[in-house]
Amino acid sequence: MANVKSNHGKPVVVKGMDDPWNVWYSELHDGCCGLTLKIDRVLESDRSEFQRIEVLENRFFGKILALYGSLMVADNDHNAYNEMMAHVPLFCHPDPKQVLIIGGGDCGTLTEIMKHPEVEKCTMCELDQKVVETARRHFPHLTTGLDDSRARLVFEDGQEFIHSGNDKYDVIILDLSDPIGPATNLFQKPFHQAVFDRLNDSGILAAQAESPYFDQGAISAMYGNLRDIFPVAKLYTCFMPIYPSGYWAFMYCSKGPDPINDLDSARWERLKLKTRYYNIETHRAAFALPQFVKEILK
Amino acid sequence: MANVKSNHGKPVVVKGMDDPWNVWYSELHDGCCGLTLKIDRVLESDRSEFQRIEVLENRFFGKILALYGSLMVADNDHNAYNEMMAHVPLFCHPDPKQVLIIGGGDCGTLTEIMKHPEVEKCTMCELDQKVVETARRHFPHLTTGLDDSRARLVFEDGQEFIHSGNDKYDVIILDLSDPIGPATNLFQKPFHQAVFDRLNDSGILAAQAESPYFDQGAISAMYGNLRDIFPVAKLYTCFMPIYPSGYWAFMYCSKGPDPINDLDSARWERLKLKTRYYNIETHRAAFALPQFVKEILK
Repeated sequence: MANVKSNHGKPVVVKGMDDPWNVWYSELHDGCCGLTLKIDRVLESDRSEFQRIEVLENRFFGKILALYGSLMVADNDHNAYNEMMAHVPLFCHPDPKQVLIIGGGDCGTLTEIMKHPEVEKCTMCELDQKVVETARRHFPHLTTGLDDSRARLVFEDGQEFIHSGNDKYDVIILDLSDPIGPATNLFQKPFHQAVFDRLNDSGILAAQAESPYFDQGAISAMYGNLRDIFPVAKLYTCFMPIYPSGYWAFMYCSKGPDPINDLDSARWERLKLKTRYYNIETHRAAFALPQFVKEILK
Repeated sequence: MANVKSNHGKPVVVKGMDDPWNVWYSELHDGCCGLTLKIDRVLESDRSEFQRIEVLENRFFGKILALYGSLMVADNDHNAYNEMMAHVPLFCHPDPKQVLIIGGGDCGTLTEIMKHPEVEKCTMCELDQKVVETARRHFPHLTTGLDDSRARLVFEDGQEFIHSGNDKYDVIILDLSDPIGPATNLFQKPFHQAVFDRLNDSGILAAQAESPYFDQGAISAMYGNLRDIFPVAKLYTCFMPIYPSGYWAFMYCSKGPDPINDLDSARWERLKLKTRYYNIETHRAAFALPQFVKEILK
């Protein structure tokens, strides 16, 4: 197996750290700190038209999907990222019928969205069909949403999709890989403005927003853009053990609904969704920001 | 410089991962996953009567103290652990005059305690004098509490101190290293009972309780013990980027005060403490537990 390297985050698989039979994967921030995993098996190591795709196996985290050299999702990450991407906007929207996911190739967010009976259609626009195929092969619990008749897949560039279509959505989710790589333009203001234009009157946007430890510049820029465009723009966070620093940020933006005051806790009680991370308390708590994170937003 | 190894968490310093001039430090859970740091300089690598003591320097985290092979505190960890250990119990106690810290050798918790003018005396009982001396040399901002006339240092085994004395305290903080190592007995029920007996009527205990990802057995056992002893026993958490998994737990136990209902937010507003992580919102949010953490406590 070849060493795993990419030009972002400088992840490396190092053979022979202890002995020649050991394989290690490290995803490093700025070449100086990050997560290291002992890789028991490399299940896939492939390249699509757009990026590297790896499926790795680790004793603690189970199977792990890595795209463009960054860890995306794992069997044992407690599904924090997907649940916080999906349920936070959906439980704040009064009637989420039409949902759009841009990105989200591992299908974990789609699968969470499909747990909501109010949703009539969820369109997922993913650039890279090979990611969906790989996820389907290796992560059955993440991809059950694909079998839902309300799910519609489009394999297309998210920017083109947003700029070319006319359909409006109640909730749009930007479930993107890092701003360095194929998704770069999808972190820019023109794209965010176009997303705003594709939302209905009470529309909500949720977008992944990188690490509050390692990517403060990216968060600050994204928050600035979105606050200019949306009347409601708030940062929220979760624990995510396989992402850089273990602490992750999201933007919640809307044309009206407030993430705390308009949270429909009665619907959560009624639906009794089976989750591993999300609940009404973690929803509210996610918007409580530590002092150093508040500083980023000043 | 010798390789850094210990019998807990199997941290290793690996030379020559990229080239022979690079030194890397990895603190691994169960030998399979954990944080990796590029070490620019090893400022100290020493051994006390009780444990290894290292001071390492990393480009992102700055200076880092490692005890017994585990990372304890860093310049750039945003002080989350120390602030959540100190301010959570203190802002819940109606009149915290007498405070006891068991452990806490890096003095970060002591320094946070000393920010509270209500405190008349804070006793810190640390086993290893060499840790305090090392912290004082390398972490001036963490150790200013040592210069406060209300601080009293005792270099003694925490178990002996608790069992032999008679003084009562309003708040006791167990700022211990991991349950494997010199602090093993201080995670056991007889010690927790003795701590209960040394608390005044409205007394509060805060205790570090390991990682909700990696140490679920330890948390479950500790919660079971403390719930048997204290009328109020709750788990709370924070983000801590240099600790295993980046997500850390604490126990809050008391003879009366509730961590949410008795939180004195007016005092927080009045004191205007300068913190990097703690605020009234993160205090409340820390008690909102993800579904998988609630499962640990069942």
